[in-house]
Amino acid sequence: AKMIRKFPCLVSRTFCNVGREDPRRMIHALKVGVSLTLVSLLYLLEPLFHGVGQNAIWAVMTVVVVLEFTVGATLCKGFNRGLGTILAGSLAFFIDFIANESNHVFRAIFIASAVFLIGTSATYIRFIPYIKKNYDYGVVIFLLTFNLITVSSYRVHSVLRIAQERFYTIAIGCAICLFVTLFVFPNWSGEDLHNSTVSKLEGLAKSIEACVNEYFSDSSSEIREDKWSDDPIYKAVLDSKSADETLASYASWEPRKSRYCKFPWKQYVKVGVALRHFGYTVVALHGCLRTEIQVNFGFTIIVTPKAVRALFKDPCICLAAEVSKALKELANSVRNRRLCSPSILSDHLHQALQDLDTALKSQPRLFLNPTTDQKHNHAPPPHPSSLLALAAAAVASKGGQKPPTTTTTTTNNSNNNSDNVAMPRTKTDTSALLEWKSKKDNKEGGERRMLRPQLSKIAITSLEFAEALPFAAFASLLVETVARLDLVIEEVEELGRIAHFKEFRPGDEVV
Amino acid sequence: AKMIRKFPCLVSRTFCNVGREDPRRMIHALKVGVSLTLVSLLYLLEPLFHGVGQNAIWAVMTVVVVLEFTVGATLCKGFNRGLGTILAGSLAFFIDFIANESNHVFRAIFIASAVFLIGTSATYIRFIPYIKKNYDYGVVIFLLTFNLITVSSYRVHSVLRIAQERFYTIAIGCAICLFVTLFVFPNWSGEDLHNSTVSKLEGLAKSIEACVNEYFSDSSSEIREDKWSDDPIYKAVLDSKSADETLASYASWEPRKSRYCKFPWKQYVKVGVALRHFGYTVVALHGCLRTEIQVNFGFTIIVTPKAVRALFKDPCICLAAEVSKALKELANSVRNRRLCSPSILSDHLHQALQDLDTALKSQPRLFLNPTTDQKHNHAPPPHPSSLLALAAAAVASKGGQKPPTTTTTTTNNSNNNSDNVAMPRTKTDTSALLEWKSKKDNKEGGERRMLRPQLSKIAITSLEFAEALPFAAFASLLVETVARLDLVIEEVEELGRIAHFKEFRPGDEVV
Repeated sequence: AKMIRKFPCLVSRTFCNVGREDPRRMIHALKVGVSLTLVSLLYLLEPLFHGVGQNAIWAVMTVVVVLEFTVGATLCKGFNRGLGTILAGSLAFFIDFIANESNHVFRAIFIASAVFLIGTSATYIRFIPYIKKNYDYGVVIFLLTFNLITVSSYRVHSVLRIAQERFYTIAIGCAICLFVTLFVFPNWSGEDLHNSTVSKLEGLAKSIEACVNEYFSDSSSEIREDKWSDDPIYKAVLDSKSADETLASYASWEPRKSRYCKFPWKQYVKVGVALRHFGYTVVALHGCLRTEIQVNFGFTIIVTPKAVRALFKDPCICLAAEVSKALKELANSVRNRRLCSPSILSDHLHQALQDLDTALKSQPRLFLNPTTDQKHNHAPPPHPSSLLALAAAAVASKGGQKPPTTTTTTTNNSNNNSDNVAMPRTKTDTSALLEWKSKKDNKEGGERRMLRPQLSKIAITSLEFAEALPFAAFASLLVETVARLDLVIEEVEELGRIAHFKEFRPGDEVV
Repeated sequence: AKMIRKFPCLVSRTFCNVGREDPRRMIHALKVGVSLTLVSLLYLLEPLFHGVGQNAIWAVMTVVVVLEFTVGATLCKGFNRGLGTILAGSLAFFIDFIANESNHVFRAIFIASAVFLIGTSATYIRFIPYIKKNYDYGVVIFLLTFNLITVSSYRVHSVLRIAQERFYTIAIGCAICLFVTLFVFPNWSGEDLHNSTVSKLEGLAKSIEACVNEYFSDSSSEIREDKWSDDPIYKAVLDSKSADETLASYASWEPRKSRYCKFPWKQYVKVGVALRHFGYTVVALHGCLRTEIQVNFGFTIIVTPKAVRALFKDPCICLAAEVSKALKELANSVRNRRLCSPSILSDHLHQALQDLDTALKSQPRLFLNPTTDQKHNHAPPPHPSSLLALAAAAVASKGGQKPPTTTTTTTNNSNNNSDNVAMPRTKTDTSALLEWKSKKDNKEGGERRMLRPQLSKIAITSLEFAEALPFAAFASLLVETVARLDLVIEEVEELGRIAHFKEFRPGDEVV
């Protein structure tokens, strides 16, 4: 009973939402209503009816079938309907001309076999991808009209008149549709494609920033249960292929709108492809978020320690911010139909990438130390100490390259740390390093000995390769994101070139 | 001129290919031809024509429009057409009944406003997603029929007869369509969905194996230029969303085929979603292939040295083979409609994952050693030595856990190596380790000193973290692939449960 009472409420809410989401839908519905009424007048008003005749009803049918939401779709359908009717009419007339010569029975057989042949081949032709994409509706109308005229011609003996009348009324219907769609609040497929490109760019910008921020946020421990918790923003990008292609194919029917050129719908499709590829990387990046928490098939949970993440937090977030900024700038550029700000797109991004690169380069080297594994079994867990040391070392490598500086910083950091294994060693090493300093001139021979103390300190800064794996994947994907972004930028710039976007002026708003 | 001569050849080849790709298309075309001929007989044969009358032409139209490639699509369209006609007929009859009471002018106004109102609201309703998905065609037919009958009723005064005749002829047309589609070589959407699921599983199995093999192949130096060189196999998976959903919605119209239950089209859609998610990871994995070669934005090329890859080659290839095997087993299971072999799905896969895990765990730890950078500037390039040492250590960690064993193995391996830096140290360390052995009891105090020699040896096995990054990403994604595979397995098992697949018997062929 509750369900029943709720139902009308739900229906009315759905009903209203459809209009609120896109007010053009309401307008389109009114347009259809008006056109239908107009075309009905052909039949209802006495003088018009006498001009057109009984077949006025075909005009009504044409309006119902042809008038679509966007200009491109209407033009495409109208053209298909017109072409299909003309071709079918001609063919039917030709067949009627041949069949007319013969007697009644032979005529029936002839018509039936013509229907069979044309029906079979037209249906077969519809499977050809090129025809299916562009002229599917036209072939259906062709078949429909052909059968209608050919079959009727058996009993009605004024086929030419039928064909003519049908053609006229369809032409009237198409004319009304064209007028309404082109001049009364027109909706352009090209415009839709343009806007969807902008919103995809913005959506990706948002989701990549959110993704990286979430990765480095401290609250990452809250396990998210939903399996397919992918961000709907980029989900829309991934599944945009067929919608994009439909819009583009309709847009290709629309008349030129700018002074310069035809609407570059092909380039928009290319941008869409580049964006989808970008999106795949974002999905993988998003996957890292979950890998951190749950993955490894439930039998080995490898989580990169937070301290390691913290080490790379700034360059990563900075890079993500730059990527996001670049995407927003691209979105703005497309939205305002102007070329992109060259500085945003390359300088900052390169700078951020360089920073991350430096951070990664200055980072831990990989060593093998099979013994430490056993050692730590009866020692306190190795992570806190090792990671702080790592962090310290990272700071050190920025501050200066000389070992003494490194050691000092390490000591400072170790003091903040309550670890009881790391502390004594660091102190011992300081003295060892002083020894190293005094022996600095002794190059080749001394190297072996002088390396030893330095390394023993680093022994405790060990981290399992497997532990670093998820982060490495994250960083690597982030870098790949930039590479994919490069392709997106390329395609958008090409779009700007083809569509003759206006020049970028320094005064233009920059994100 | 050459183009012109080539054109007919191209056309005929395209024409033939369409039929060769899927012979059912040829059959479908013939089916349409036969049905059209049958329905034309209604008009052509004298006795039938007298029964049905002039409106026989509507039956022809119905066949052209309703007869679709698969059973589900035909049923869906036929139902929509029938429902739309009935509703529109009733409504038109009701309106005609009201309008009949009044005079001529008022009637015209009444009809026009009814057309406007119904036209507007029907068009608006088409935007509601639920309606758009299931009943779009029905609403169009409703609008068409309603307008046809209402407008005609103004001049023709036997509306009830028009409506009736139209209904009968449409029913005849639908009946012919149903008969042909259901009993003459039927094509089931559910079958298509089933087969596309199988081929997607197989395609992914192939592409993941190819991807991993290519990664570890020695010929990876051949740079592939094509930007979007994604494997078409999994590309098909990624873009399968709309096709899947269309097939599923048609499949939902098809009558039950198995003894137990309705066709579980919803579950197939879920499997499709899981496969797409799996596909995203494969794309990312494929991206690693390219990262290795060209990425990092053109300004820093980081390539994981081949030797490092070789180190993990076997477990990775093994894991990929197991993933591929599992996918093939799933494909076989779905194809033969039997439950999956439980051993393939878990045991081997887990074993392979465990192996990779062990390989990764036994592998280099991360250390920071800022000094080595400067050192190696005037030393021979660090890679060959370090990597052999790495490999040696890996073997060592498998062979035995005790430091002396490790050293021996390392020495053995170093002998195969022409490196002049690694050799002397290893020897020195052997003596150092003997010293370590004697001091073994001295736990807390001695640990510091005894670690030192061991580590100094490993100093030369250094590898930049950044260098390992691409491989880490690759390995991490491979592991994630397994996690995604788990979800695919889950969904396929659920599918098996819902669709009552037959039990797995040990005798069943196993991939």
